Order: sequence, then C-alpha cells, then structure tokens
Amino acid sequence: PEEAAEPESIGPLFLRPERHPVLRINNLKPFNAETPPEILTESYITPSVFFYKRNHLPVPNIDPATYKLQIEIQAPTNSERGGGVLSLSLDDLKNKFPKHTVTATIQCAGNRRSDMHKAKQVKGLNWGIAAIGNASWSGAKLRDVLLAAGYTLDDSKWAQHVQFEGLDQDVAGTTYGASIPLKKAISEDGDCLLAYEMNGEVLPADHGFPIRVVVPGTVGARNVKWLGKIIVSAEESSSHWQQNDYKGFSPSTDWDTVDYKSAPAIQELPIQSAITVPADGAIVDRSEEEVTIKGYAWSGGGREVVRVDVSIDGGNTWKIAQLKCSDKGADGETTPPPGRAWAWKLWELTVPLPEDTKEMEIVCKAVDSSYNMQPDTILPIWNLRGVLSNAWHKVNVRIQEEE
Amino acid sequence: PEEAAEPESIGPLFLRPERHPVLRINNLKPFNAETPPEILTESYITPSVFFYKRNHLPVPNIDPATYKLQIEIQAPTNSERGGGVLSLSLDDLKNKFPKHTVTATIQCAGNRRSDMHKAKQVKGLNWGIAAIGNASWSGAKLRDVLLAAGYTLDDSKWAQHVQFEGLDQDVAGTTYGASIPLKKAISEDGDCLLAYEMNGEVLPADHGFPIRVVVPGTVGARNVKWLGKIIVSAEESSSHWQQNDYKGFSPSTDWDTVDYKSAPAIQELPIQSAITVPADGAIVDRSEEEVTIKGYAWSGGGREVVRVDVSIDGGNTWKIAQLKCSDKGADGETTPPPGRAWAWKLWELTVPLPEDTKEMEIVCKAVDSSYNMQPDTILPIWNLRGVLSNAWHKVNVRIQEEE
Ligand SMILES: [Mo]
Ligand SMILES: [Mo]
Repeated sequence: PEEAAEPESIGPLFLRPERHPVLRINNLKPFNAETPPEILTESYITPSVFFYKRNHLPVPNIDPATYKLQIEIQAPTNSERGGGVLSLSLDDLKNKFPKHTVTATIQCAGNRRSDMHKAKQVKGLNWGIAAIGNASWSGAKLRDVLLAAGYTLDDSKWAQHVQFEGLDQDVAGTTYGASIPLKKAISEDGDCLLAYEMNGEVLPADHGFPIRVVVPGTVGARNVKWLGKIIVSAEESSSHWQQNDYKGFSPSTDWDTVDYKSAPAIQELPIQSAITVPADGAIVDRSEEEVTIKGYAWSGGGREVVRVDVSIDGGNTWKIAQLKCSDKGADGETTPPPGRAWAWKLWELTVPLPEDTKEMEIVCKAVDSSYNMQPDTILPIWNLRGVLSNAWHKVNVRIQEEE
Repeated sequence: PEEAAEPESIGPLFLRPERHPVLRINNLKPFNAETPPEILTESYITPSVFFYKRNHLPVPNIDPATYKLQIEIQAPTNSERGGGVLSLSLDDLKNKFPKHTVTATIQCAGNRRSDMHKAKQVKGLNWGIAAIGNASWSGAKLRDVLLAAGYTLDDSKWAQHVQFEGLDQDVAGTTYGASIPLKKAISEDGDCLLAYEMNGEVLPADHGFPIRVVVPGTVGARNVKWLGKIIVSAEESSSHWQQNDYKGFSPSTDWDTVDYKSAPAIQELPIQSAITVPADGAIVDRSEEEVTIKGYAWSGGGREVVRVDVSIDGGNTWKIAQLKCSDKGADGETTPPPGRAWAWKLWELTVPLPEDTKEMEIVCKAVDSSYNMQPDTILPIWNLRGVLSNAWHKVNVRIQEEE
C-alpha cells in the first residue's frame, strides 16, 4: 500500500516521503500531521501511515549502506576512565544484538494543544487529540548497545543522562537533540529500543529511518528519530528542545517572566485520555436509541490505565468504560508487568440516549495505576507553550428528534 | 521528653503508649490520631510524637529480646525450588546487615477524607489534612534481608509480591497484612527498609516497635508495623486490607455494586498538597498588610514535587510558592536521584492582602516530576471508601478591616 511507495527525494540531503492523504496537516515544512480521531480507535495498533508525524526539521536522506551510529561514553575529564567510542552499522545493530519488540504508545507533549489554545492563546503547532499513536517497535535494546560500548556499573558514579543526536539538521547545521535519565536508558525494565522496525516493517522515513530510539512511557520529543549519536554523559542534552522547550510552567508564567531553568525537562507524561467518537458537534438520531462512545487512555512512566470514567451530562454522573488492551478481545489480553505498561488502552461505552435533553456533553477522564487522575479544567494547567494539555476531554453532541 | 515515658501496658498482650496531648484523636481503640496542621509545617522532619498514628488493631506488646522476624520464600509447589525460611532476631537485623537511613514521607490512603466526606458521605476515619508525616527511618534494607533468605534472580520467574504480616491481631487472631510488588521490594532503587529507628531513636510502639517495613513512595497501609513475617510469593496478600479495602473506585460505584476485584490495590499514591497555615476560617488583620501561606506537597512513586501553585482568589490566578526540602535553607538542599524523591516538600508564599475584598479563598495545587497535577474538585474523584482525596485544597480566610 502507501508504504511501499518510493519516498520522493528533494535534493541529495532531504526526503519528502509519500504521506497518506487522510492525515490532518498542521505544518508542511517541516511536516507535522495527525491521525483523524475516528481512525485512531479503529485498531489497537496504529498503522504507520496513520501514525502522527512530528518533524522538527526536514527528513534527512540517509543511505542505510553507509549509515553509522556513534556511541560515546563521555567520562568527565577529571575521571580516571578513558573515553569510549563505538561505531555501529545498521547491519551491526541488526545482527550483533538480540532483536526485541515492544508495543509502546508515543505522545507528543503538544497533543491536545488546541484545547488549551481555545481557552487562552499559546504558542505551538495546533494539535488536536491525535498527536498520539500506539505501535509495535523492534530493534536492539539500548541497554545492550550501551554495555557493548563499554558502559559499566562503575560509570553510574558520574553518568546521569543519555543524550541523543538526530541526523536531521537546520540550515545552520544544528541537529535535533534530547536526553533521558541514565537510569531509564540502562535499566532492564526501561525497555528502551534502538528501533529499526515499526509494526513489523522497515521504519518509515517520517518515523526515523534507519534508527529511532524508542523510550517507552516518555514524551515523544525524547524518542529521537534519524538517530546519529548517543552520548553517555554527566549532563543533560544542551539542545534547545531539552533546555528551552518541552517544559511545563505555571499558568502565571508568561513570555516576559519565563525562566527555563526553573522547570525540569518533560520526561514521563501524565495521565491522558480523549474521546475519538463521536466527534465534537456530531448529531445522533433519536431513533438510534443509544450512542457508542470511543476513545483512548494512556499514562507515562509505565503506569497502567486502570479505569476510564465517562459522563454524558458534563461530568455530573459517570459510567465506567470497557477497556481494551489488544484487538483480540478480553481473552487475548494479558496484564503488563507492574511499571511496564507502555501501551495505551482503547475504551468504549454504549449508553442509552438520555430522554430529557437534546444536548449531551460527553466527558472522559482516566485513572492510572498510581491513581493519578486528570485535572477537571484547562485554565489552571494552562502554560505558555501549550504542552501537557490533559484536562478532561469534552465533546458536545446534539440529539436530533424524530419528525 | 514524651518519648522517654514508659509505655503503659494493658494486659500482657497489648500496650497503650503515652501519646502527646496535642494530637487530634479520630479513634481511641484502636488509636488513630493526627498532627495539628500548623505543627506539621514547623519542621521538615515530623517529630515522632507528632507523627500521625494509624493503628488498625491494638498495639502489640513485643519483647525485643525474644522477637523473631520470619522470612519465607514461598515457591509454588510445582517449582523445583525448595521452600526457604529464615528467622532473624532484632540483634541479627541490627548487626548482620548494613544500616541504611532513608527520609521518607508516609501518607494514609484516607488523608483528607474529611474533605471528601463533606462533599458526600463516605465510610472511614474522618482524617483532616495531617494523616501524613515525614521522618528519617533507619534499618536493614529489605533487599539485603531477602537475599540473605535465599532469594535469587531465578525466583523472579514466579515471585510477584512480597507479603507482610503484622504481630497486631484482632480477637479472632487475624493479623494485619499487606503486600507490595516484588520489584519494589528487591530493587536497589526501591529503598525499602526494615526500620528499627525513627528519627534517630528506637522505633516508638505506635510506629511499629521493634520493626516496621518502610516502603517509600507507597501508601501507609503497606508500611506494615510490628512486622512478624515476610513472605515472597506468587500472590498478593489475601488480607482484608489488600483485597477488600485500600482500593479506589469510580464515583458511580456504591456499596451495592462494588466489585473489589475490579480495582488494583493502592500502592503508589498520586500527587497531593495541602495548606496548613492559615487555618480554614482564620481571620487576618488588615493592618498586617500581608499573609504567609504554608503547606506541604508530596507525590508517590518517588516522583519529586517540582512546583506548587497557590491562589488567593479561589483558583482564578496563581502564584508560585517557594519549596523547601530541608530545614537548612536553599544552600543545604540537594536534589534526590530521579525516581527516588521519597520525602515531601514544604512550601511557603507571602502575598500582600488583596485590597478589593474581605474574603480570600486560598487554594493550592502541586505538580510532580511526571507533570501530574491534582484534580480541581472532589465529587468527580469521590469514592465510597473516601480514599485518595487529593483535589485542590482550599481554606477560606476573612480580612478584618481596621476600625
Ligand atoms: Mo513533541
Ligand atoms: Mo492508611
């Protein structure tokens, strides 16, 4: 299908991959687009062609035959340890390390920014509710590659962060960069991958071909695509995106008062959920007698979604939705190990149409295994960059009376 | 001081320790009492005499000279592994294992239940905002003791939970019991202790003398006091408190429909904060010109509190409070390792009295390192047992005009 098409090359350095026409485009250059909401909950695994695409810079044109991933152990100059550098080809990554597969949801920090923007203006791409997707990722374990590069337990004395540099760059030659805590990268339970496959096929160009680091439970921005370099360091990435972006601030912080150093870089994301069906403004016919409500729910840090409450009266009364963690039905479902619930849950609820009203305000809110809940309203979590928009999601639906 | 007093023995089996008269008693038998709020934020470490006391059963009278802690590796009958039992005296625990000290906040699942009860009736002790405290705990690492009892990596194939049994029991001989996930108990980073000291002194009778398991970041109910037995198992504790209590339910669940199996046992607690000063209903004098607001903030699972927002206009506008993570002032403060922020932060904010009003509704809300926020209101998180009450905390204060 669409994926088989040859990506269009736009000069030797960049690619313009073919993109599915159904995607909702937020920006063309660089390409940023999301899934139509109703497609998002059609399958537990988001097909790669529909998976949201969030590119900070043009898609680099990388030759897999000559591609090298650099891994550097950047010991402090005053340490006795020498530096260490390992260079791996794509074949090395595929053949020298066991292949692992992890199903993980990735969400953009800006998912649902449009809800926040509606409440009060923010700066950023105007994402709807679908800058999130769930895929199966396969590749070498980041942990295995770090150990092969010479990382030892002794290094945990100074090593605090693992930095990632992309091969995508701006006109000045600045590459995309980010970092994650060392503990997440090196832990057996962290399940971080250097992925070369997405949903059982070669990683698409828009998703980081040939290698993307997948950091389950962690904001999309740290799942660096077109990965060129890994650095084990005492320091966080010094990149713009780590230091001066992708941070959460108080609603009282504005562009004149913002102090980037005062907030931690976003890593694990908070509990989130949204309604995909019906759409806001939809009309249902009274003769249908009932309405089926669908959506997704997910939490960062490997915390499992344990419940989704749905209201059709604006949050006055609630019903419990049915959760799905596969397409197989309840029998095929297994509970992930504690702290390693990387994948979302889809949910569904069918309710009779209320008799005493022509309007329904449908609301959803999710609960994770640490019993964190979503905030009720947006303004108290508003922040100038419009990230972390996880207040209750609401859609308004009208009931069309029979003639 | 108070602690030096001999506990009063009430028969050979039970003790009635002397208790500080300032404690606010919620129940006498068993004894349940909390700290006066204004005392809670007077010191970063809560003195043991003021620390909330939550006893499910009478305080057992344990002779430290004959005390034994049993540790059992309960391999499934179909496994090749034999069973393993280790018995340790108090001297063994003190002398055969390195002593570790961890500063950890412990919070009752029912903290702030009274706020929830006010919104709609719940069943349980009517805790105010002070069923929480922060202490320094010293003892053997649970991990070290499990390894000494013969636990090996191989056992992780079947072992899922670590159960704790208290020596406190009801008239029918049923002992208090609870369990935690194995991963939390065995992980180097879990920092679970078999504590024999609280704040540098012998563990007081009300806090579990001679041994209490301290499970940092986890609800009080799993921090079992008067510990008699540890069982490594494939199963959760079968106790009432693990299976049919200390679980969170939907606001739509009532006593007729509750299905205990449908919700996970509470382990990590969600983000929490409360205002200790001024008290609800307090009156401040206009001539004072400003008001200092104080409180605490804490999150479970080792997630660090990164910000506290405070409003004096009911949540319309917010200011950022100053955080303290010691009594030493900013210079003496160090950041805990990621995922191991076990201790609360105290916070403070001084604001001018607003000129245009005689009433202030003061509100606080905290943010943790996963950017989880507190829910705005109580009714949508209401649950029949009144646990997990972590909506924004509010106090109303009146400004007394000058004559
Ligand atoms: Mo993002
Ligand atoms: Mo509790």
